[in-house]
Formats: sequence, structure tokens, C-alpha cells
Amino acid sequence: MTINAVLLGFGTVGQGVYQTIHTHRKELKELLGTDIEIKGVLVKDEHKIRPIDQDILVTSNFSDLLKIPQLDLVIEAIVGCEPAFTYNKAFLQKGIPVVTANKEMVAHKGSELKRISEKNDVSFSYEAAVAGGIPVIGVISRLLHANRINKIEGILNGTSNFILSTMRKEQTSFEETLQRAQEKGYAEADPSNDILGRDSFYKIMILSDLVFGGQPDWEQTECTGIDEVTIENILKAQEVNKRIKLIAAVERDESETIKASVKPVLLDSEHPLYAVEDVDNAVNIQTDLLGNLLLKGPGAGGLPTASAILQDVALLFGQKEKEETVYASARSIAKRASPY
Amino acid sequence: MTINAVLLGFGTVGQGVYQTIHTHRKELKELLGTDIEIKGVLVKDEHKIRPIDQDILVTSNFSDLLKIPQLDLVIEAIVGCEPAFTYNKAFLQKGIPVVTANKEMVAHKGSELKRISEKNDVSFSYEAAVAGGIPVIGVISRLLHANRINKIEGILNGTSNFILSTMRKEQTSFEETLQRAQEKGYAEADPSNDILGRDSFYKIMILSDLVFGGQPDWEQTECTGIDEVTIENILKAQEVNKRIKLIAAVERDESETIKASVKPVLLDSEHPLYAVEDVDNAVNIQTDLLGNLLLKGPGAGGLPTASAILQDVALLFGQKEKEETVYASARSIAKRASPY
Repeated sequence: MTINAVLLGFGTVGQGVYQTIHTHRKELKELLGTDIEIKGVLVKDEHKIRPIDQDILVTSNFSDLLKIPQLDLVIEAIVGCEPAFTYNKAFLQKGIPVVTANKEMVAHKGSELKRISEKNDVSFSYEAAVAGGIPVIGVISRLLHANRINKIEGILNGTSNFILSTMRKEQTSFEETLQRAQEKGYAEADPSNDILGRDSFYKIMILSDLVFGGQPDWEQTECTGIDEVTIENILKAQEVNKRIKLIAAVERDESETIKASVKPVLLDSEHPLYAVEDVDNAVNIQTDLLGNLLLKGPGAGGLPTASAILQDVALLFGQKEKEETVYASARSIAKRASPY
Repeated sequence: MTINAVLLGFGTVGQGVYQTIHTHRKELKELLGTDIEIKGVLVKDEHKIRPIDQDILVTSNFSDLLKIPQLDLVIEAIVGCEPAFTYNKAFLQKGIPVVTANKEMVAHKGSELKRISEKNDVSFSYEAAVAGGIPVIGVISRLLHANRINKIEGILNGTSNFILSTMRKEQTSFEETLQRAQEKGYAEADPSNDILGRDSFYKIMILSDLVFGGQPDWEQTECTGIDEVTIENILKAQEVNKRIKLIAAVERDESETIKASVKPVLLDSEHPLYAVEDVDNAVNIQTDLLGNLLLKGPGAGGLPTASAILQDVALLFGQKEKEETVYASARSIAKRASPY
């Protein structure tokens, strides 16, 4: 008895998942009551040499994976909306649960895939799509139940935060710091998604869907990146003990209108996101009962993101014992309510 | 069909729960699929005037509550180990789930109550016992599944943190600041549990049980409070950009020995707990996959703690739909594994 999985994509995140399933085999087996076995990996170029076991199907042809019998789980770690959406949809329609780390796809198509998953009585989860290893989706959807959430503010892009922190600490220009981030592997060769704010934009839209049940109009929503922040801006802020951070925010106002923005903001030292530095991400959740809850941690990278993916897998297949208790409680009430 | 509950204790936390069940009736009903109704409240002095509905049983006699028919839930918000332990044990043995906010009792008797709850196939939960509204128990037990946790460090006592923050900001003595905290309601008339570190000690022992499955020897564990921290110590630290914080820590070393401590620690400005100020609590969880995860928020007060209690109630009775999906996945694997 094994959970048969396929992996779509073998970049940083896909490799992190593949590696963790091997290094954490014992923990995962304890948790899930069974092993996870990767049956196939979807890649762009199947001739490239990769550290993948020989008996695993490595293919660039999606329909090869769809044909694998007795498939239990799809882990999707592709970048961009298509073809990821088409693939995920096909698997969900076959009744196979999907766990994804693909923020652009979830921002665009998350609601549609949730509807498809509900229709097919199968799970669609996306913890890894927002803030890497920080369990923000789980905390909001599974733990803050009794609270009304009023506003969410976050530092959701590690690359931008690294650049802004480093410019301040090292007194270097934007261009010089970006190059350094690229050398360190913190920024991609084409960094535009990160530095123009689009990556943060996708993530705040996903949180908007989750918390407020909808998204504001994308065209009407400000999305300003950090590419025009100068070292002069940053040093001037520091003189008055302030920091410039790329803040993504979403809130619902009194007229029930959802408003979001992504932009560089001047924070004073009392702000909960002021102390979030380097590649860390953080989310500040403003609620009515609990007050302000801050979650801070690594927002990207193969292992943190793998951690988030495996969290979704565990919630999907694990914890049978715990759920049994939930059922026992529900049954006891139902029994009492029944006249028979 | 209603969830019939009793409330043990009507102090700050008990009142917060009572109030929230009224103010958040709609949210709770959506979440639980049914209303929660408080059937009885256990108090010390039943003649004191309290804002409790007239048709609710208010009693100082525990056995009156035990006799309530069709009881579904016990919410315990008493201070101290006894008589809370005896009460909780009696309810669990009757098969009634207990949600508690009582840290001293959970630190002493949590493992025993967990065993009793498992034996009686009923739930025992204690999110509210550590760090008030911050969902630290839920994050560790339900969300960080795939991770190995190496160490936990926290600021777990809001009173001490308020006193230390205020001494630094206002340059006031320990005695003067304590008095101010008492005037603000942040410290009790007898503040010894807070300022001597015992409150933090109970909480770190609860986390030790949860994360490492056991506690270090209490007699061998350092527990130093903040009562000997002087304004001179604090200002000297500030000169070199450091802060003194009351840190509770627990870790398991390479020889599998669990070590814990509660003591004032000098933190530099890069430390994740450096920026945790005033009555906030925070927990820094060091893991192998995710890296460092920081959770920060209000660590005490009626409403934040009520939020944690209602989170436990929701996990106990709610989310039937979600759990159905878990079962569907488990069933699909079980079916396949069966030879018939």
C-alpha cells in the first residue's frame, strides 16, 4: 500500500520535493501510514541528465502521466499559468488530488480549480503558492476560524526584500545589488516578476480569494515594484529610522469593497514588518479577536517550499486518528439530534 | 441541534469566551453547522453578580455540572492544577471533550489527560494554554508535519515582556514599572508567577511534551525571572544595541536529551525575538526543512485567548466537509490495497 504520485516540473521546487521524499521517508511514513512513491516526472526536456531514479518515468509528454494506473496524487511545481492549468484540470477531472506551488496559476485560476475539485469530490491545495514554507494558508483556513480577518499585509517576495535590505546595509545601488542577488541565486536571470511586484501581486490575490472570497479588479489595482527605489531614498529613510519595504496588502472596507495594492512603503520601526530582512517573507494578519498575528519565515527555496507541499500532502492523506475524533464528536451530536 | 457546553471558571478568559460566543454567533454557526449553548458556568462564589443570562446554571458545585444531560463540551478556564485536573479528568472519563486554557494544569498533567482522553476516545485540547491567541499548538501539531523540529525559543509571558520593554523605553525602575503594569491590568496583584518565570516555564514544558514527547526534569531546569533585572542592565545593553528579553527555550541535543530553560537573555538586533515588544508573545520554531518560523501576536487577554479556545472547538466539531475529503482519499487508497 503506497501513495502513487507524479511530479509536474523539476526546477528548484520539484527537486526539493523529490529530495525531501527521500530524506524524510521515515517521518512521512509515520505521518501518512504508508510510503509516497514518485511514479513519474514531467519535464520540458527529457534528455537532460537529472538525479532521478532509473525506474521512474521521466517524460515531456503529459498524456503519459495521465495514463499511469492507480495514481493517488499530483504535485505540480511548474511556473506560469499554462500549461499547468490544463494539466491540473485534467487530473482533478479524473478525481486525482492536486497539490500545487504555482502562484501565477492559482492567482489566475484558483477559484475555477476549486470549483472543479469540489464538483469531482477531490482536493486541490496550494499552501506552497504563498510565502514558501510559512504555513499562511493553513493558519488562515484551518486555525483562525472564529476570527474575522480585516486586513492582510505582507512581504511576499524574498528577492525584493533581499535587494532592499542589502542596499540599506551595504549602501549599494539597485543595479549592483540586483546583480549580487543573481550571483547568490536569490534572483533569476530575468528578475522582472520579482522586482516589478508581479510575484507579490499573484500572492496577495490568492490571499484575497481565500480571506474575502474574491479578488479586486486587476487593472484597477496598483502594482509598483522596487525597480525605481534608489539608494538615496533608502538612506534618507534610514536617517529618520524608517525602512522601505515592498508591501502587498489586501483589505475589505466598510462598503464590502476589496482593495489591494503592491508598492514600496516607508515603515517606521514599530511596524510589524519593519524587522523582516533579507530573503524572509512575513504576513501580518489583522483580526478582530486575536488582534495582529505575524508569521515570518523563509519565503522561497526548494526545502521550505517542499515543506509546504508535504504539509498539504499530510493534511490530505494523514491524521486519520485525529479525524476519527472529529467524527466521533459529530456522530455523538447527530445521534442525539435524531429522534430514533 | 446544539452543542451544549459548560464553562469552568469565569475570570478574564472565561468571560472572553462567553462574550465571543455571543458576538460571533453567526460565524460559529456557519463554522460548526450548529449553535453553541452555554448550559452552566462553574464559579467560586455563586452569589457574586455576573453578566450571565438568567437561564444558565451558575454554580460553585462541580457535581451539578456533571449531571447536565447531553453535554457535548467542557471549556476549562480555571487557574492552577487543582481542582481543574480532577474536573477535567471526570469529564473526559464520561466521554465529554475538554478544551482548556490552563497552562499550569497542562504542564503538570497534560500527558496524563491525553492518555485518559485517548482511552475514552474523546478529545483533549489546549491551544489556549500557550501564547494566548497565537496558534502555536495548531501550527506545530497540524501544519509542520514533514519537519523535524530542533529547537523552540519563545517570549511566552506578556507581563514580563511589557515590563522589560517599558523599563527600556521609559527608563524606569523594575518596581515602578511593575506598579504601572498592575495599574494597566497587565500584571496581577500577586505578579510572582509572571515575573519569576513560572508562567513561561509551564508553557515551555507544554511545548516540550508536544514537540519532543517528554519534559526535562523540572528540578534540573533553570527558571530565572526578571525580578533582578535592573534599569542599569537594560541601558547598558541598549548602548550596544541589544535588548534583554525573558526567553523560554527547549531543545533536544544529539544524545536525545531534552534541555530547557527560562531566563533573561541578551539579544542582538538580528535575533528573531529582538523586535517582540510590550505584551506581545512570540515563538521561534527551528526546523530542518522550513528553516526558522516565527509566530508573533498577543499572548494574553480575554479575546485572544477566547480565539484560541474557539479554534480548538472548531477543530473538534467543525470542518466536516474538509474531513470528508480526507476520508475519500484514505478510502480510495484502502480500496485499492484490498485484494477484494
